[in-house]
Amino acid sequence: MGLVVQKYGGTSVGSIERIKNVAQRVVATKKRGNQVVVVLSAMSGETDRLINMANEIDLEHNRREHDVLVSSGEQVSISLLTMAIETLGEKAISYLGSQIVIRTDSDHGRARIMDIDGSRIKNALDSDLIVVVAGFQGVDANGNITTLGRGGSDTSAVAVAAALSADVCEIYTDVDGIYTTDPNICKQACKLDKISYDEMLELASLGAKVLQIRSVEFAQKYGIPIHVRSSFSDNQGTIVCKEEEGMEKAIVSGVAYNKNEAKITICGIPDRPGIAATIFSAIADKGIVVDMIIQNISAEGLTDLTFTVPKLDYDLALTSLQEINQGIGARDINGDKNIAKVSIVGIGMRTHANVAGRMFAALARENINIMMISTSEIKVSCVIVEKYTELAVRVLHQEFELAEETKNES
Amino acid sequence: MGLVVQKYGGTSVGSIERIKNVAQRVVATKKRGNQVVVVLSAMSGETDRLINMANEIDLEHNRREHDVLVSSGEQVSISLLTMAIETLGEKAISYLGSQIVIRTDSDHGRARIMDIDGSRIKNALDSDLIVVVAGFQGVDANGNITTLGRGGSDTSAVAVAAALSADVCEIYTDVDGIYTTDPNICKQACKLDKISYDEMLELASLGAKVLQIRSVEFAQKYGIPIHVRSSFSDNQGTIVCKEEEGMEKAIVSGVAYNKNEAKITICGIPDRPGIAATIFSAIADKGIVVDMIIQNISAEGLTDLTFTVPKLDYDLALTSLQEINQGIGARDINGDKNIAKVSIVGIGMRTHANVAGRMFAALARENINIMMISTSEIKVSCVIVEKYTELAVRVLHQEFELAEETKNES
Repeated sequence: MGLVVQKYGGTSVGSIERIKNVAQRVVATKKRGNQVVVVLSAMSGETDRLINMANEIDLEHNRREHDVLVSSGEQVSISLLTMAIETLGEKAISYLGSQIVIRTDSDHGRARIMDIDGSRIKNALDSDLIVVVAGFQGVDANGNITTLGRGGSDTSAVAVAAALSADVCEIYTDVDGIYTTDPNICKQACKLDKISYDEMLELASLGAKVLQIRSVEFAQKYGIPIHVRSSFSDNQGTIVCKEEEGMEKAIVSGVAYNKNEAKITICGIPDRPGIAATIFSAIADKGIVVDMIIQNISAEGLTDLTFTVPKLDYDLALTSLQEINQGIGARDINGDKNIAKVSIVGIGMRTHANVAGRMFAALARENINIMMISTSEIKVSCVIVEKYTELAVRVLHQEFELAEETKNES
Repeated sequence: MGLVVQKYGGTSVGSIERIKNVAQRVVATKKRGNQVVVVLSAMSGETDRLINMANEIDLEHNRREHDVLVSSGEQVSISLLTMAIETLGEKAISYLGSQIVIRTDSDHGRARIMDIDGSRIKNALDSDLIVVVAGFQGVDANGNITTLGRGGSDTSAVAVAAALSADVCEIYTDVDGIYTTDPNICKQACKLDKISYDEMLELASLGAKVLQIRSVEFAQKYGIPIHVRSSFSDNQGTIVCKEEEGMEKAIVSGVAYNKNEAKITICGIPDRPGIAATIFSAIADKGIVVDMIIQNISAEGLTDLTFTVPKLDYDLALTSLQEINQGIGARDINGDKNIAKVSIVGIGMRTHANVAGRMFAALARENINIMMISTSEIKVSCVIVEKYTELAVRVLHQEFELAEETKNES
């Protein structure tokens, strides 16, 4: 007996048939003696259909109205699921973000949740209702509808779970858990039973697409365990939870990769205070998010600076740097779009020496050249030539013995 | 310079192209120096698409959730129109029923508007914005979404106009005004320039489908002129307004007909107090609305009672009467579905004698037998055999000289 929040994505509610399946899963959870809150995305394809209509009118359409438009998608899915639950003999009620209230800031299209009032949901649960909540959407202080950005329903679900002090937040998706790496490029990839919030955050920010980063931050902040599992099976998935005493501290839990970045190098920069600030302000002014930054030690009063930006922003970043170069006086600005970032993540790194060294050696054995290196307490990332990505992932997966057989042997 | 409320129906916003056309019309009205509030229905076909999905789940689905579902339709149309207006260089903002607030009772699917707070719209107008409001929907005292029933957007528009003390409420539709009768069955039918609220109410309740009755009641109560016109032309339509001193008081303004009723006769009822109450309570308990009622004077302590009900409810009405007949002791209960009601409406009747007589004589000349008669201060209705409907309409249209040529001659 507990309070369970279940989140289903667009694919899981993509047709009337699938909505009926979700209803059965929800009712089964209720019948096992739980209170159940369901958080839903729009039916798959619906959000795109709406955005296409808006784009037909104006590609640069009003962001407030964009949110009014796309938030209608969850309005459809929550009412249909509620009806489907009632055909199975349970009572249910749907709530929009504005009805709960899920309060956000006013940054339309990528709003952040500020606060959730759990009282309306609690009252409904106490009246033995199943509660169906629209994910992805909220309302700002002036009553304007906001949306959280793609994948925002994960964050809605965890935030609702936090507001209700739920026992678990189950995220149903089309994969059956978190894997040691992408199974599409490494057949030995295997599902993790448990992973810590910190590791999940690193994996998500390094390119694993299963959970929205902000949802993991929320879960960690409020101590809500997330259970990532498949909506097409009853298999146990992966639990994302806080690092426990008894938790086996794998040196490396997963290997991630990201092909969506490009690198830019500014050569021969006069080494004086304020230069880096000038450069990165110019880039931030264009709304471009910089990931890795590396600066070599200065030689003869000149230094080199290399950093990565999203591939989509590469041209814009180069142009804006050329515009300000007169004030900087760098010798050359160049870049490369054919790069990829491969990373290893694991809380065990904190206590094991030379994990980075093992990574570099493994890549070297395959003659993969490392262009940039970046580390955190539980992560090492290397930038390499893009075409070696798959090879590098497989090599690292093997080096750190992540395959099922290897794990069982050890 | 004035405050104009414009309402566009589903056909007028049925595609992106049409939404762009509506935007141009709205902006043109603004550029002529008016403040403009637009009230919209859902894109045509959208409400049906949503209802079909709900029916796939359960034909008897939850009414609260039904309203959550279908109200998403206007959410789409208002945001798209707002975007389209902004491409033309004007600023605009959309509001849902729950944002304004349009407060209704809790009768889901056919809620009645209780109150509209005009302050949010007024503030937006004062900031030089065009305001786009979702028709058809409101919110009850507990924050649940409600809908007003089919055609409810007309009522939304007039109610918004009343809350703002607008100068006029323009209802754009696919016909270009109110006609003296249905042009499909009488070629001589011609468009009226003006018609009084009272006449419009009678015409609407007698079967003319241009305006929802409740919208006319609202307009009359708050003295808001309604301008019914076509969204596909710039022609002047028909103004529905209060009866004015200078208004030409046509003896008859229009001829209406209704083929959706059936008649039921109860013969040989013992003529004692309480019998009529017993009969009509039994019918009202089934949710059936009775229209005309006629009782002949009693002969030998027995009387006959005839009344009309919607054709759809005919069988149910007959069954419930047979169930209670033991307590009544009537000799026979029978009915007829092949009937129609033809009516003439005009405020001039108040001051002209024998209008009814002219109607009966005109029908008699064509050998059309009259089965029931019902009158009000500005209306005479006759029930006839259904197959004579079109003939009766044409005869009455001619008798009261409603054709354009006849009018000009007089």
